[in-house]
Amino acid sequence: MEIIASPKNDHIKLAKKLTVKKYQKDYDRYLLEGPHQVHDAIASGAEPDRIYATSKYMQDRELRTYYNRMFEISSDVAQALSSAKTSQGVFAVMKMPHNQLPKPLSGSFLMLDAIQDPGNVGTLVRTADAAGVKNVILGKQTADEFSPKVLRAMQGSQFHVNVVSADLIKLTTALQRSGVPVYGTELNDEAKPYASMAKTENFGLIMGNEGNGMRPELLARTDANIYIPMRGRAESLNVGVAAGVVLFHLLS
Amino acid sequence: MEIIASPKNDHIKLAKKLTVKKYQKDYDRYLLEGPHQVHDAIASGAEPDRIYATSKYMQDRELRTYYNRMFEISSDVAQALSSAKTSQGVFAVMKMPHNQLPKPLSGSFLMLDAIQDPGNVGTLVRTADAAGVKNVILGKQTADEFSPKVLRAMQGSQFHVNVVSADLIKLTTALQRSGVPVYGTELNDEAKPYASMAKTENFGLIMGNEGNGMRPELLARTDANIYIPMRGRAESLNVGVAAGVVLFHLLS
Repeated sequence: MEIIASPKNDHIKLAKKLTVKKYQKDYDRYLLEGPHQVHDAIASGAEPDRIYATSKYMQDRELRTYYNRMFEISSDVAQALSSAKTSQGVFAVMKMPHNQLPKPLSGSFLMLDAIQDPGNVGTLVRTADAAGVKNVILGKQTADEFSPKVLRAMQGSQFHVNVVSADLIKLTTALQRSGVPVYGTELNDEAKPYASMAKTENFGLIMGNEGNGMRPELLARTDANIYIPMRGRAESLNVGVAAGVVLFHLLS
Repeated sequence: MEIIASPKNDHIKLAKKLTVKKYQKDYDRYLLEGPHQVHDAIASGAEPDRIYATSKYMQDRELRTYYNRMFEISSDVAQALSSAKTSQGVFAVMKMPHNQLPKPLSGSFLMLDAIQDPGNVGTLVRTADAAGVKNVILGKQTADEFSPKVLRAMQGSQFHVNVVSADLIKLTTALQRSGVPVYGTELNDEAKPYASMAKTENFGLIMGNEGNGMRPELLARTDANIYIPMRGRAESLNVGVAAGVVLFHLLS
């Protein structure tokens, strides 16, 4: 079989474009990178359109089912496709999932209000997955789910959790109408220590922007605010760590 | 007063060197960047040798005490000194702290075994601070405390917590001799769910390398291993999130 040895190959140029939001939308496809992400996609039943792999991965056992969609690439092409410093040598072109909110609206929802750092967004999805949260909702101005940095930090958790983009104000109202309480995480006079909250499988938990916290109009709609009492002198926690502490309490 | 307008100014060249471990050792100084870090240093009683600031910060109220050690720099010089994409315009040359292990050995210790990502190391120190941990111990192959990325992620928590570099195997033995149990975080047959551990102010908690976990020879010396039961399908948690969940349980 021929090896794709030029980064100017049309398929490779297209695959590279699929790391950029505009093209992801146009083609309804995005690019996964690295064995962990690609294996996890396949294990979760997501079907890759095409897999590009260096010789090392051409015989990979877990990719075998898709041997007819695999194309060997040179290490130069792998490096050109990679968004990491050092390419891991395997890529998959995937269909966009078009996830929907569950019907009826029930279960657990981690809601991200303008979380801008891609690493934080990815870690939040991974943490939600580990804690057993069913849905992660990306509000406006939250880093894009299919950007390479978010994909890397999610470590495949997007295949285990229902990740959806939605308007958080509308969703808050809808959740409340369905009997699901929505908790904010803004420190104010009425905020309750997280350990005092009853354990539950039905809730929305909103995490706000790294610098500015939650939008006031969203905060005003929450059923309660939760805070993490700090014994030390740090002013705040990293947003992923804070979500982890609260979610492992609520769902344990 | 004169403005330093050239990045080739000798003091500026030296300040820039103080972001690199070799020079930090030679000069026994390191460079802090950004108003948050510099304010926090001063609020904690650490005395800057020199402060370099753009005009915006020359009248800063919190820096006033040190006006005689302040030097105005142009925005070009600020950008040259900065390790961020966009400089925040204020820098401080600080003495290395030379922290020591507490005597007698008691209290809480977060021990980092070859944690390599600077963002993770910084987040771990910040999380330890928030949870009320007194000491963070950096083992071999852990990212350097005074690298710009670690400093940024710590958000000033190094001024609230005793951060020390030490050999983790020797420390584990010494803690145990002092009656302080040391917990590992390696999933094995005897690992105990974190929520079953008694709350305590006296413990060592070891977090291992992001990919490989703890070194076996260190693991073999622990008094118990703790794990975080996961309800979802994520294979693991980010190391900072995992430490947060366990520390807020132990110290709450």
